Parts: sequence; C-alpha cells; structure tokens
Amino acid sequence: MADNDSLSQFLASAIDAAHNAGEIIRKGFYSTKHVEHKGQVDLVTETDKACEDLIFNHLRQIYPTHKFIGEETTAAFGTTELTDEPTWIVDPLDGTTNFVHGFPFVCVSIGLTIGKVPTVGVVYNPIINELFTGIRGKGAFLNGNSIKVSSKSDLISSLLVTEAGTKRDQLSVDACTKRINNLLLKVRSLRMTGSCALNLCGIACGRLDVMFELGFGGPWDVAGGAVIVREAGGVIFDPFGADFDITSQRVAASNPLLKDALLDVLREAE
Amino acid sequence: MADNDSLSQFLASAIDAAHNAGEIIRKGFYSTKHVEHKGQVDLVTETDKACEDLIFNHLRQIYPTHKFIGEETTAAFGTTELTDEPTWIVDPLDGTTNFVHGFPFVCVSIGLTIGKVPTVGVVYNPIINELFTGIRGKGAFLNGNSIKVSSKSDLISSLLVTEAGTKRDQLSVDACTKRINNLLLKVRSLRMTGSCALNLCGIACGRLDVMFELGFGGPWDVAGGAVIVREAGGVIFDPFGADFDITSQRVAASNPLLKDALLDVLREAE
Repeated sequence: MADNDSLSQFLASAIDAAHNAGEIIRKGFYSTKHVEHKGQVDLVTETDKACEDLIFNHLRQIYPTHKFIGEETTAAFGTTELTDEPTWIVDPLDGTTNFVHGFPFVCVSIGLTIGKVPTVGVVYNPIINELFTGIRGKGAFLNGNSIKVSSKSDLISSLLVTEAGTKRDQLSVDACTKRINNLLLKVRSLRMTGSCALNLCGIACGRLDVMFELGFGGPWDVAGGAVIVREAGGVIFDPFGADFDITSQRVAASNPLLKDALLDVLREAE
Repeated sequence: MADNDSLSQFLASAIDAAHNAGEIIRKGFYSTKHVEHKGQVDLVTETDKACEDLIFNHLRQIYPTHKFIGEETTAAFGTTELTDEPTWIVDPLDGTTNFVHGFPFVCVSIGLTIGKVPTVGVVYNPIINELFTGIRGKGAFLNGNSIKVSSKSDLISSLLVTEAGTKRDQLSVDACTKRINNLLLKVRSLRMTGSCALNLCGIACGRLDVMFELGFGGPWDVAGGAVIVREAGGVIFDPFGADFDITSQRVAASNPLLKDALLDVLREAE
C-alpha cells in the first residue's frame, strides 16, 4: 500500500480532476433542455467523453505509470482487466438519465484501486455542490466534514434506496417489483435517485440506511463510493451473499447492523 | 378573482413566510442526526408546528379575514372545510421522512385558493435553495426564472416519479408494485423522492415528465404545486380519471401530451 503522503496526493489530484469535469457537467446540465431535440444521445456521449478525457489526461500527466479504466474507454476498446497496479476507475458522468432530464442527481465518480482494493474515492455532484471523499484508513468526508453511516438497527425504521435498473423485459421487471414488494413490507420507505455512486454516498453520510443495485454499468459506478462507504463505517457487499467484487455489477451497502436483515429479505424474494 | 396587484402581494407574503419557515427547517435538518435518539417524532412535530405557527401568524397578521387550512391544525382540530373564501393551505414541512433522515428533498408548501381554485403557490426547498412560485394566469418560476413542463410526447422517453405511500398492508403494497410493474414496461425510468410537492414542481420545471401519487396527507401537499404545474403549462388530474379535487388525496400531473397515456397504464393496472 502507498504511504499516507502519496494517498493524500492521489486524493488531491482526483478532487482537481472531479472539479474540472464537474464544470463541464454543470454547463451541459443547464443547456440540456435546449439541445435535446438535436439528439440527446450525442450530448450525453459528448459530455461523457469530454469529462473522461479531461480526467484521464489530468491524472495520466501526474501518474504516467498508473492504469486507467473508464466507461467511455471500455465502450470503445472493451474491458480492461483490473490488475494489482494502481488503477484509476472513472465514471465521468453517473446518472445519465438524470443529466438528460435535468434532475439534479448527477456526479463524477473517481476511484483508485491498489492491489485491487478501492483505496481513494471521490464522488462529486456539481449541481448541488456536494463533494464526497475518502482514503482507506483515513475516514470519509462530505465537503470536508467527517461523515458516518446511520446507527439504525432495524429495517422498519430504515430508508431504502434502490433502482429499477435498465432491463425492461417482463422477467427482469417482475423480479425487480417482487423485491420491492417484499422490501416495502419491511422498511420505512423507498427512494430511487438514478445514481448508484450518489446512493452509496447517501449510505456513507447516513441519509439512507440500506441500498442495493443490480445490473448497473460497471466497476466505475462503485469504485469511488466503496472507499467512502467503508471509511464512513459502512459495509459494502454482494446483495446475494457472495464476496463483494467491484466488477460483478451487483452491489449492496448499509451500516454493519442492517446487512444481515437486508440479505434475508433479498433471499426471500428469490 | 382578486386583482393582479393583490395576487402579487399574496405571493410576496407567501414567499416571506416560506423563507422564514425554511430557516427553521434548515436548522432542524442539520441537527436531526444529533437528536434523533431523544425521539424523532417530537422533533418532527416541533418543527412542523413551529413552521405552521410562523406561517399562519405571518399571513393572518396581513390578511385577517382569510381562512387557513394546515396539516398541524387539522391534526389538532379536525378538517376545516374548504370554502370559496381566500384560503391559505399550508404544509409546513413536506417530506417528513426525508427530514428525519437528512435526505435533502424537504420543502414548505403554501397554496392560496380563491373560489376553491388554487391561485397562488409557493414551494420552497431550503436545503438545496430552490424556490418555486406561481400565480394563476401569470406563469411559474424557479428562483425567479420562468419554467415550463417538458415537451415529451411518449411515455417510453419519460421519467416517471411516484411514491410507495405510507400504507404497508399486503393489499396496498401489492397494488402499488403492480402499478410500478406495468409502468416500468412503458417508461424510461422511475424516481421516488419522498416529497409530493417537490414532485409536482419537478413536473413543472420539466425535470420529471409524469407523476402520480395516492394516499398522501391532504390538500396541503398539492395546493401550492397545483398552481405551479398549471402555470408551467402542465395538467394536474385525478389518476383514475375523475375530476381533480385537491381534497381527494389522489393526484397526477404531466405535460398535456402524456396525460392520456399515463391514465391508460394506470387503468390497466386496476
């Protein structure tokens, strides 16, 4: 593992990159409505690509020997294997549908793995100006203030966040609403925000108590948030009880007290 | 109907009241986490009550002949009948669960009906500092900028917002998830924010395309938002096709192009 000075420097670099990308997202966010009829997909692709280029160029210049995995790069060149080398895993724009519609849950997510372990995380929502950060072993922060997960110990007083996912065949939708049905009988209420990385940060700062999501884009949705959740005292785990794997496209998170209860309800719904 | 000068004055008074109540909510919001173990219900009741008192006192002083309907007053003294008199209908804190958990979708909602018609509306989220306003016949605004509903014409590219409601018996939960199941096959994606008034404003400013909600608290959740939606070019209607009634605890809203499509899907789910 890198020494503390290096880790602080990695975090500072990631924050700089996130702020710069956030500026592009903010501009696109407020102009979305005017250009949508010209083709929203192009706008998203352009913003995504511009942000990923900016973040990768920024970090590559400082850390030329590090590896990089990003949503846009993967879309263009296929999956890059995660190795033990320091690897920046980047979602330049999480919450794409929100971005297109102007719903203010969008963010830049930047995670650095070392020995495959998420070690530095930055999740930045440039619209409502919230910057979540974490370094392994050094705590988690929201706009510089220390954060921690909630202290809820029972599901019935817990706020759950999940997403409907992008699969819209009858089988997937049935499985999704069956899980929601089971959970609604057990939790206080349910939120859906449209951003996996921000949902993880919601767990980290205790606004949300339990979250799970299936079939999202890739490791870039969780690499940044994973550090932040853990450093806030939370646990991040596989929603079906397997070992957590940032490449599995399945994630759940909560404080340590609620993990087993969530796993039980999800198991019942299978 | 009151003249334009009176309506502008009513709006200005409502904005003042909302800002003052917003200050109390903001303080409570950031201290929630520290006092929750002492009894979250008391905190909510206290903040609700303090905000409603403040808003009612403010408006009563200026408009001593007007009528008042509020969530707290109704809880204490039973329902006040809606008459043709100018009537202020107030939810001092919409998004109570969010308030308790620190999830930033909370607002003050103030509506003025004249001849039972929602005529002035103010919905203010003091956490992310968004002030939605509307006067019948004079347009709708977000932080002073004119807003309008989205131009989407098909459900499949629409962002739906709804809520799971507060009823947690098996029959209600089954009906809720059946509607969600049907809708997930027809819309782009689904959001749940936990605030009826802010969902209406999301429709008004085009962030969200279609919304419906059943079994919420009362007319105070919709009286402010109704004006704002209509003045932004939207329609507000009963989700089961009846005439819209602000006292019915059922509401739906969209741009005019999506109304029939939403009603069709909701009918199929019955």
